Amino acid sequence: LINHELELFREEYFNLHPYDQARFYLRLSVELRERIYECLSPQEMADIFENLDADDEDYEPILSEMVPQYAADMLANMYTDDAVDVLNELNKEQVASYLTIMDDASAQEIKDLLHYEEYTAGSIMTTEFVSIPEHSTVRSAMAILRSKAPSAETIYYTFVINNEKQLSGVVSLRDLITAEEDMLIKDIMSDRVVSVSVGEDQEEVARTMKDYDFLALPVVDFQNHLLGIITVDDIMDVLDEEASDDYSKLAGVSDMDSRDRTPFRAAKKRLPWLIALLFLGMLTANLIGRFEATLDQVAILAVFIPLIAGMAGNTGTQALAVAIRSIATGDIQDESKWKLIFREAGTGLITGTTCGILVIGIVYVWQGSIFLGLLVGISIFASLIVATLAGSLVPLIMHKFNIDPAVASGPFITTINDIFSILIYFGIATAFMGYLV
Amino acid sequence: LINHELELFREEYFNLHPYDQARFYLRLSVELRERIYECLSPQEMADIFENLDADDEDYEPILSEMVPQYAADMLANMYTDDAVDVLNELNKEQVASYLTIMDDASAQEIKDLLHYEEYTAGSIMTTEFVSIPEHSTVRSAMAILRSKAPSAETIYYTFVINNEKQLSGVVSLRDLITAEEDMLIKDIMSDRVVSVSVGEDQEEVARTMKDYDFLALPVVDFQNHLLGIITVDDIMDVLDEEASDDYSKLAGVSDMDSRDRTPFRAAKKRLPWLIALLFLGMLTANLIGRFEATLDQVAILAVFIPLIAGMAGNTGTQALAVAIRSIATGDIQDESKWKLIFREAGTGLITGTTCGILVIGIVYVWQGSIFLGLLVGISIFASLIVATLAGSLVPLIMHKFNIDPAVASGPFITTINDIFSILIYFGIATAFMGYLV
Repeated sequence: LINHELELFREEYFNLHPYDQARFYLRLSVELRERIYECLSPQEMADIFENLDADDEDYEPILSEMVPQYAADMLANMYTDDAVDVLNELNKEQVASYLTIMDDASAQEIKDLLHYEEYTAGSIMTTEFVSIPEHSTVRSAMAILRSKAPSAETIYYTFVINNEKQLSGVVSLRDLITAEEDMLIKDIMSDRVVSVSVGEDQEEVARTMKDYDFLALPVVDFQNHLLGIITVDDIMDVLDEEASDDYSKLAGVSDMDSRDRTPFRAAKKRLPWLIALLFLGMLTANLIGRFEATLDQVAILAVFIPLIAGMAGNTGTQALAVAIRSIATGDIQDESKWKLIFREAGTGLITGTTCGILVIGIVYVWQGSIFLGLLVGISIFASLIVATLAGSLVPLIMHKFNIDPAVASGPFITTINDIFSILIYFGIATAFMGYLV
Repeated sequence: LINHELELFREEYFNLHPYDQARFYLRLSVELRERIYECLSPQEMADIFENLDADDEDYEPILSEMVPQYAADMLANMYTDDAVDVLNELNKEQVASYLTIMDDASAQEIKDLLHYEEYTAGSIMTTEFVSIPEHSTVRSAMAILRSKAPSAETIYYTFVINNEKQLSGVVSLRDLITAEEDMLIKDIMSDRVVSVSVGEDQEEVARTMKDYDFLALPVVDFQNHLLGIITVDDIMDVLDEEASDDYSKLAGVSDMDSRDRTPFRAAKKRLPWLIALLFLGMLTANLIGRFEATLDQVAILAVFIPLIAGMAGNTGTQALAVAIRSIATGDIQDESKWKLIFREAGTGLITGTTCGILVIGIVYVWQGSIFLGLLVGISIFASLIVATLAGSLVPLIMHKFNIDPAVASGPFITTINDIFSILIYFGIATAFMGYLV
């Protein structure tokens, strides 16, 4: 590359799969990347960009390395849905300037998709699909597919439309190549077609695709007009993204990205949570402060604070994770919310009883005081029930009010449950002080 | 159904997509399911079973509802990889008895796949694929595809083999239908084919498929012989399973299943973690017990225990989640382990300094003692650094020794960090006791 051995480089480079080309490209310095733009046409660069798995905030600097016309041509050559993903990371002026110097047809396609809100079916669908009218023959359908094959994102599933351009069925390439050439599409298509509406959440779409094992899913408006299709490769990214998102939030890190290269960037994503939790922790400290008189008399009480708070926190995280997962997988319907709550109450009762009895035994043997054992054991018992219920109620209530329940992170629930458990522990201790001193 | 209106039921039922048929089927009582077996042929039942998303432990009772010969015929009619998934849930005698009454060809195919260890490429691949020799023409390849279309899992990607039955390329149906009929497969195939080895972990396979956007991936042995293929629908299930698995472990619930219907089943999955954490918590309590003299003199110290332990726990969980995610996505290579550790140390330093200074200020204003403020602030500072490092080192070390790092759950790291932070806090407090009393 350095030596301008252009042909040799091109040959080597195109021996790689586009995904590997993209990884190689991302590792280069700006100077070397600029050399690449000289070697490759915008069409060739578009293939690489479709496979570029860069951080959201990295697209803007990369695009500005390119000559604007080159960047616009490249975007025009990408699959529309991928180009829109890239453009969504830029500010409005930048988007407008690229669209102005782009050819009109591509610019129009991109504009149509830019309207849809992020994380909806509309934002991940592509308009480069093949649709065929009900009354075509298999022969003419195959001819259409052959001509559209180079530009369409998939030709393995073709959606069938009626005279009003409404979705009426689906036919797979498998069906087409095994059918007689003179048959009508209408007669071989399946009218048992599952579609998603354009405003549907991408997580719902992913779940539908995964459950039904589809390779492509049609997107329709409220009048059942076919607007676009979503292909399975985009859905795999959505599944991964959503899983990673829920995982980050459970751990209390916003938008976790293992490629955060500097400690500053990593700290920036964790500090907001830590500072919020710090203030909640101060609240806990304040709460214990109110029981200073109790503590002064029976210093041994302090010994069990982390145990009780910790157990409440742990069990709350468990209940939280189960509830969030139930909501995310759609296993929760309105009728079964109460079921979940009753089940969690039961689970809390069982775990609380088991751990409570264990603790009474251990503390009695260790400290030789049955009252202290009873105090700690009963506190654990009550805390575990309350914490389990809190862990499942909080996400359910948030879901009810259309707040993403995953925002109720593990550390948040843990800190809330710290407070409950300490109130229970010191409440009981203060009430029965007489037996302890 | 009840009224024996057999034909009507069959008609209605087959209007549903197999996934919906499966959901409907799962909700029925045993009696009604037995009625279904009378209505449907083993072939028809096989379609439903392929889409059955039941709990692992539910397959055995369902199969035993059926007449054994019916069950065996159904298993023989399923795609081999799906049948193997079901059989893997049964004990060896049951598997052997079904295989004995099955037709020989299907039994042999299933036996071949049963050899592969669970969670490897071999265990999720199917042997129902189409391969074509390099020297075929496009015309003969299309003829093969047409004849194999009804039984192959996918015909959209066809793998090409040489005379030694080794994988030499891949050709898509898209390429085939656009190519001239007389061309040789050799000339239109892509020899840039990515394959996975039969013993590879399913998580690795899923990542390869997702990154390269493949619909099917060939599985080879160490001599590059083509053994089977893995299709994208199975990979979506793997992605989901692995994400769910990591998520459960971060929350400290083994094998979380939101469909655990009774509190007993849910409690059984959470109690082992809770009891292990209970003993760790007792260790923490014992540790504080050793500082009882310090506590007796300065009871106010107890007030900040949950704050310090909580902050250490939270930041440890954050670091843990980032490290586990880096390992899971394969972003971690040997060279960059040290980078991750240095970055986490840096992150701990930044978050520790920020939170430490905040705490010194708050405690000073609240309690009016600069020494208490310094004690709590410096403890937070040191605990956050140690906890961040522990959160990233523990999974890295486990990964080094080939232990699944996800086993180091959030609650486990939290409890470990409780202990570190309390040692730091009481250590400093005891050393500088003179300034506090």
